[in-house]
Amino acid sequence: MSTIDLNSDVGESFGRWELGDDAAILALVTSANVACGFHAGDPRTLRRTCELAAAGSVAVGAQVGYRDLAGFGRRFIDMEPAELAADVVYQIGALDGLAKVAGTRVRYVKPHGALYNATVHHDAQARAVAEAVHAYDPGLPLLGLPGSRLLAWGERLGLRTVREAFADRAYTPSGDLVPRTEPGSVLHDVEEVAQRALRMVTEGAVRAIDGQDVAVAADSVCVHGDSPGAVAMARRIRAVLEDARVSLGAFV
Amino acid sequence: MSTIDLNSDVGESFGRWELGDDAAILALVTSANVACGFHAGDPRTLRRTCELAAAGSVAVGAQVGYRDLAGFGRRFIDMEPAELAADVVYQIGALDGLAKVAGTRVRYVKPHGALYNATVHHDAQARAVAEAVHAYDPGLPLLGLPGSRLLAWGERLGLRTVREAFADRAYTPSGDLVPRTEPGSVLHDVEEVAQRALRMVTEGAVRAIDGQDVAVAADSVCVHGDSPGAVAMARRIRAVLEDARVSLGAFV
Amino acid sequence: MSTIDLNSDVGESFGRWELGDDAAILALVTSANVACGFHAGDPRTLRRTCELAAAGSVAVGAQVGYRDLAGFGRRFIDMEPAELAADVVYQIGALDGLAKVAGTRVRYVKPHGALYNATVHHDAQARAVAEAVHAYDPGLPLLGLPGSRLLAWGERLGLRTVREAFADRAYTPSGDLVPRTEPGSVLHDVEEVAQRALRMVTEGAVRAIDGQDVAVAADSVCVHGDSPGAVAMARRIRAVLEDARVSLGAFV
Amino acid sequence: MSTIDLNSDVGESFGRWELGDDAAILALVTSANVACGFHAGDPRTLRRTCELAAAGSVAVGAQVGYRDLAGFGRRFIDMEPAELAADVVYQIGALDGLAKVAGTRVRYVKPHGALYNATVHHDAQARAVAEAVHAYDPGLPLLGLPGSRLLAWGERLGLRTVREAFADRAYTPSGDLVPRTEPGSVLHDVEEVAQRALRMVTEGAVRAIDGQDVAVAADSVCVHGDSPGAVAMARRIRAVLEDARVSLGAFV
Repeated sequence: MSTIDLNSDVGESFGRWELGDDAAILALVTSANVACGFHAGDPRTLRRTCELAAAGSVAVGAQVGYRDLAGFGRRFIDMEPAELAADVVYQIGALDGLAKVAGTRVRYVKPHGALYNATVHHDAQARAVAEAVHAYDPGLPLLGLPGSRLLAWGERLGLRTVREAFADRAYTPSGDLVPRTEPGSVLHDVEEVAQRALRMVTEGAVRAIDGQDVAVAADSVCVHGDSPGAVAMARRIRAVLEDARVSLGAFV
Repeated sequence: MSTIDLNSDVGESFGRWELGDDAAILALVTSANVACGFHAGDPRTLRRTCELAAAGSVAVGAQVGYRDLAGFGRRFIDMEPAELAADVVYQIGALDGLAKVAGTRVRYVKPHGALYNATVHHDAQARAVAEAVHAYDPGLPLLGLPGSRLLAWGERLGLRTVREAFADRAYTPSGDLVPRTEPGSVLHDVEEVAQRALRMVTEGAVRAIDGQDVAVAADSVCVHGDSPGAVAMARRIRAVLEDARVSLGAFV
Repeated sequence: MSTIDLNSDVGESFGRWELGDDAAILALVTSANVACGFHAGDPRTLRRTCELAAAGSVAVGAQVGYRDLAGFGRRFIDMEPAELAADVVYQIGALDGLAKVAGTRVRYVKPHGALYNATVHHDAQARAVAEAVHAYDPGLPLLGLPGSRLLAWGERLGLRTVREAFADRAYTPSGDLVPRTEPGSVLHDVEEVAQRALRMVTEGAVRAIDGQDVAVAADSVCVHGDSPGAVAMARRIRAVLEDARVSLGAFV
Repeated sequence: MSTIDLNSDVGESFGRWELGDDAAILALVTSANVACGFHAGDPRTLRRTCELAAAGSVAVGAQVGYRDLAGFGRRFIDMEPAELAADVVYQIGALDGLAKVAGTRVRYVKPHGALYNATVHHDAQARAVAEAVHAYDPGLPLLGLPGSRLLAWGERLGLRTVREAFADRAYTPSGDLVPRTEPGSVLHDVEEVAQRALRMVTEGAVRAIDGQDVAVAADSVCVHGDSPGAVAMARRIRAVLEDARVSLGAFV
């Protein structure tokens, strides 16, 4: 019997502005990428989200991002590595404090948005993130894209690395994600996405955009949480996996 | 032989903007109130400041404040207690993370600026700060003004409370600080300030603004760090205390 | 035949976070209090909102607030008058620039949230806001609460002042608003609110919380835009007024 | 007799943090690139700076930048053109409001820091900035680097473009600036810099880093304002130009 982790982004409200249905998502996933205040997440929201995660035995991860509320962390910022590393430690520490008072702790780190994308290829920023995680706690796993510079630096530093797959994203024949700017890059059919998640987990494969199968190594499947229909899709993915007797559990 | 702590605010630069001479101040004091990013202090600055403190065996305290870079935390904000408590936990955690990677830890908490002033009398905000500290770590002392609501709440929650005196501030006959808005509230003569510090420590008394002596209980003497002449004044205070064979040491 | 203005808050989204249905509200009101970026409203949102207002011939007002995204401008900040005045000029100018490129201009000013509430009684902040508006353009009207310090300062400086009433808020027997913290302060019944709006306009009176009538002088009726049901309530108020042959039109 | 403009960055303090000696610089230059609040400059500072500029008959320019206080606008941000254009309009409008209450107006626009550098080559961002300036006021000149995409877009839109040279920066043999990351890119010798400024103005040439002369077309010479010695260098440049009977005057 296989075991897989489902992860999703939560804690992305900010003050008056609400985003996503954290309570519903936290009832479905096994790992929660909680925002850390730089791209989203005011401290009161983050505390509540950590409390919900703790109550549901969902693993809390620090979803570190660029300091960019106006851009929701989705704009690349050409930071110096030393600045970025300090920003990452600050964010992990802040969320770890809120997790602690909520009865849990930060158990892994996953970059958000443009920082996630940048650290696939940007060696200096990938290194800065990995070094920051290692400096904070060498026992914290890094969750990211297989083949990314981020996971390469994590491995070099001795961090545990956790490979992530995206059930609702199209893959190229070489196993990369089709960029969001291209047509067909994001899948919206609930049943199709759920079946792709199942194949990823049980066969380690996915149908690429050219119709051929490609290998996908996944320790965790990402479930989006902030779009309309996100909760329904997460629920269906979970149901399909459970029906197939796939065990769901956090990787930590 | 008496022992006293000298504390000062540091880590208050922000990005391109530099404030204070942290290296010089950290060579003179025994406790460092390090900003936490809400009123001042970008993460890279804070990391460096913690490294300097660690290298000099100066105790790091979390100088928590209102989220107000434009006002440097010097403007009262009428926050709800739950918001404030979460903001305080966030700030302590963030600095504690940076302190940890710098080889030390946050060892006490002192509110900054308008939050310091508010928590003298504002019961709900004082309680929120004390509860946040207690939730984060009930072993963390609170540094503050004797008689403040903050220290009262700290005591009620079982926190260690540390009483602070100000060598360069005028006192009323009842032992309160003369408000900064009144003439003569801040003393600038280096020798006079140093002698007042000495009397506070060795006699537990200070000459009030009416010319009479008043009792001042001090576990720590605050030395200002960001004004012209601050370093010279701190150096003289330290020299006068050492000449009088007062032992200098952090309270933690 | 009476004429009345309906005003509502718009432009309060921020980056990824959406709030309110600006297009629907702008089809119903005659004056739009557009956020200016300090409590809400990123520039792209504000530009679009001004374009919508211009297309619908809705008057654009600058809804100036405290610099407090985390608190949505709903927390009093104890600012110095000179700081506040400069912040107000900055916000009016910024929105006026966006209004200009959208084919319209800022035609009045109304403070937002905690600044609105503060300037009812806080003389120095009320004066600072009124002086800022006067300095920017002495031809800009101030929209606010009758009896407020804000309108008093506006009158003293020669600004046109426009009196606002709230159809969905309970009034005290003396004609003040019942504070939001008290039970029954906000009315939710659509038909009741619409009938109160009609009486305010046609009779200059409203039933106070003690059941007696009290006089209410209104040049504009505020319609809330960001709560569930807000659009439905605005639509009903407009319909009831139109059925009673009340003419709707901006005060500028 | 030649006429030349001297421009410098001012208004770059923020709240408690002071940067540069605006009063001294404004007594020496003919055009002031005033920050607009996104990379630096709180509204009270900007108002005072505009008042000083107005008093000294120095032309006020809007120094628009990325929204990045922590990075002082020196980090490239990969913004969408529509976001950037709205941010630029917002900033020009805000400063124009403060300039107006100070008795002057924004008379030109110059991008700051990373936005200045980006718009040399980044076509979409250059176009967004030029279109924003044109939408705000087609009569506003753009100050920038000769050969930049920014000036190319300005010309295409019919804006007046003003070419800038840097007396304290090394030039390549092809007339570009030597990147700051390379050794020798910034000159510090006051007399050398002053003489280079004079040659730029009177001969339209500068000694490149390879020792050969290269043509430099300059309508304005940039004088840095925030480094130690900046005021002394600006004073010497002005004196050398005046001794050579070069007339100093704003280009607007």
